Amino acid sequence: MLTLDKIYQAAFVLRDVARRTDLIQARNMSTDCDLYLKTENLQLTGSFKLRGAYYKISQLTAAERAKGIIACSAGNHAQGVALAAQKMGIRSVICMPDGAPISKVEATKAFGAETCLVPGAYDDAYAKAIELRDRTGATFIHPFDDDDVIAGQGTIGLEILEQIADADAVVVPIGGGGLISGVAFAIKHLNPRVKVYGVQAERAASMAESVKLGKQITLDSVSTFADGIAVKHPGDNTFKLINEYVDEIVTVSEDEIATAILTLMEKQKLVAEGAGAVGVAAVMFGKLPVKGKKVVAVVSGGNIDVNILSRVVTRGLVTTGRNATLQIALEDKPGQLLGVSSIISRCGGNVVSVHHERSDANMAVASCFLKIGMETRDFAQIEHIREELTKAGFKIVS
Amino acid sequence: MLTLDKIYQAAFVLRDVARRTDLIQARNMSTDCDLYLKTENLQLTGSFKLRGAYYKISQLTAAERAKGIIACSAGNHAQGVALAAQKMGIRSVICMPDGAPISKVEATKAFGAETCLVPGAYDDAYAKAIELRDRTGATFIHPFDDDDVIAGQGTIGLEILEQIADADAVVVPIGGGGLISGVAFAIKHLNPRVKVYGVQAERAASMAESVKLGKQITLDSVSTFADGIAVKHPGDNTFKLINEYVDEIVTVSEDEIATAILTLMEKQKLVAEGAGAVGVAAVMFGKLPVKGKKVVAVVSGGNIDVNILSRVVTRGLVTTGRNATLQIALEDKPGQLLGVSSIISRCGGNVVSVHHERSDANMAVASCFLKIGMETRDFAQIEHIREELTKAGFKIVS
Repeated sequence: MLTLDKIYQAAFVLRDVARRTDLIQARNMSTDCDLYLKTENLQLTGSFKLRGAYYKISQLTAAERAKGIIACSAGNHAQGVALAAQKMGIRSVICMPDGAPISKVEATKAFGAETCLVPGAYDDAYAKAIELRDRTGATFIHPFDDDDVIAGQGTIGLEILEQIADADAVVVPIGGGGLISGVAFAIKHLNPRVKVYGVQAERAASMAESVKLGKQITLDSVSTFADGIAVKHPGDNTFKLINEYVDEIVTVSEDEIATAILTLMEKQKLVAEGAGAVGVAAVMFGKLPVKGKKVVAVVSGGNIDVNILSRVVTRGLVTTGRNATLQIALEDKPGQLLGVSSIISRCGGNVVSVHHERSDANMAVASCFLKIGMETRDFAQIEHIREELTKAGFKIVS
Repeated sequence: MLTLDKIYQAAFVLRDVARRTDLIQARNMSTDCDLYLKTENLQLTGSFKLRGAYYKISQLTAAERAKGIIACSAGNHAQGVALAAQKMGIRSVICMPDGAPISKVEATKAFGAETCLVPGAYDDAYAKAIELRDRTGATFIHPFDDDDVIAGQGTIGLEILEQIADADAVVVPIGGGGLISGVAFAIKHLNPRVKVYGVQAERAASMAESVKLGKQITLDSVSTFADGIAVKHPGDNTFKLINEYVDEIVTVSEDEIATAILTLMEKQKLVAEGAGAVGVAAVMFGKLPVKGKKVVAVVSGGNIDVNILSRVVTRGLVTTGRNATLQIALEDKPGQLLGVSSIISRCGGNVVSVHHERSDANMAVASCFLKIGMETRDFAQIEHIREELTKAGFKIVS
């Protein structure tokens, strides 16, 4: 059973293992509250998962340790378990779906784990892990639905209250619910006045739906780039704890998550993964009743694939007016590109790509399309460029 | 004159103003030393500049404060001065070249400064600032060549020694030299055993050259995306202090800086600007004699323009094999694109762009070029895709 004692014991066990991550005041974020970030993206392994995994493993008997441990994860839990086992000198096997990003597989190996790549999806890897457990007698480390794991994550709640005694609210991402269960349990037992809010991606809102309906549901599919919280079915323990200790659960869209990631990079110089940014997204987009309050958002992890990060940045540049693409219908005669590019240059835009296209069935034979990508300052500058081009007789198609 | 007393006084003055930024052990960076990061990119205003500016202004007399302050900067110094003045309730005017990124102008205004956009380059803005100073009697806050400013930056040296008493070496970026002068002065007076190394961008190595030649030189031009350290001429004070207290200065290339930025994002979840990443770059690329040592790199700032960050990420993806573009010469007949894309897909690549080009004078009339952009896992996968395409009879041009 989860107790406050257990969370304090976890904090003691973790004192020289996990980083006591910094709490950073997030200024210039244009939110209507006083926002602080608990930077678990700066935790060892790039997420909070080390805490729960390490504490769980530390509670195993010598006989259990000798048989090793098994986990199933394509993400942060894998790295948390691997490092925890390495630090305790225990053999670990991590089952992963074979499509897992090579960077995550390599990171897991780098922490000393054996990886077992299983053809198929998460469920297949999970089945394999259970089979291995039954065959070898190793202990399976659940990613969230385990009191010791939850107690380990709860140490974040203790740290937050030590770092900012007068917080009004704490905002926590929810996937399976292990993190928020531990944090909410710790905080509500120490200071029930502090609100605890949960946030899910709206495209993976299994816990939000379950709490609303009063029973655990299973989503057919989850599809969010916040892969760290893409969980189809809430845990039993976490469902109960969340019902008891969490004040409200809200959801955020993919675009809101992407904007939060970009804002954290630009304003706070922090890289967050999708799952790590949902709390900040909820605050930024006014999903929570926190106007004028002191609010802590847990940035739970930073393990984002760089290809995805690149797309988030690109998309963010477009949605904030710092990158734009114009499509212009041109007469196919010399000097047209010169005319367009000199206007863009005069307005301060920076051309970064040009595509010139003739063979489109929708066009007259004598004309062509010019697709021009630019770095810009803001929407006003884009509008100015459009106006100047139009004034000069160019026809902007889109 | 700079004294250790002054640096301690600056630390006292700054105790409730500047963040005592975290020192973070940087694991998994494949360096041959034990690397720690002093995260001044997480400082208020996104760089260390607040420290020197605030301490300098705090030392002005009441009469001087009443006349306000002036600075000239398109970057971190502008924001540091602006916030420092705002915190002390002093009027500040910041002269900036009119081509300064709008994000920096807005950030400076947001800290309560008046901005004066001057047509031309930095030198023009500087001339305007001096003119304003002479006309109004306001105090000009030099970005680096000032003992009080240097003392403020030196507080970083004190913090480093408090945070890691047994450091062997500290690595510090050099632009004008204010940061390293303060840090080296503090460290060498407290523990001369600690080595202090400076790092410049090789395309803006004015201090490195000056120290080598034994006299201050002026570069005709500086051209690096590490704009925060693009300084043509070293300061007088900083030149003397660096000669006395700095053990060695090395330089890093633009590609090395870009790789360091990407690595800091991926492995440490930290956004650094070019100037902030040169120390890490020097360690990563073996420019310093620090094998097996405990080394602190000062990550001095994180104010990087997102368009530039986007380019750094894109370039980093290419140089690490996670993004590739293939150009394939095709016969111009149906089904060719299908053939290519099914092979790429089978090999696990993810096509993100396709350009199909017919009208090239170098090609036979019946053929065309296909340029295909892919997300990939690593160089081995790219090679595998190339082999499979070649086996299937496709001709890869580049």
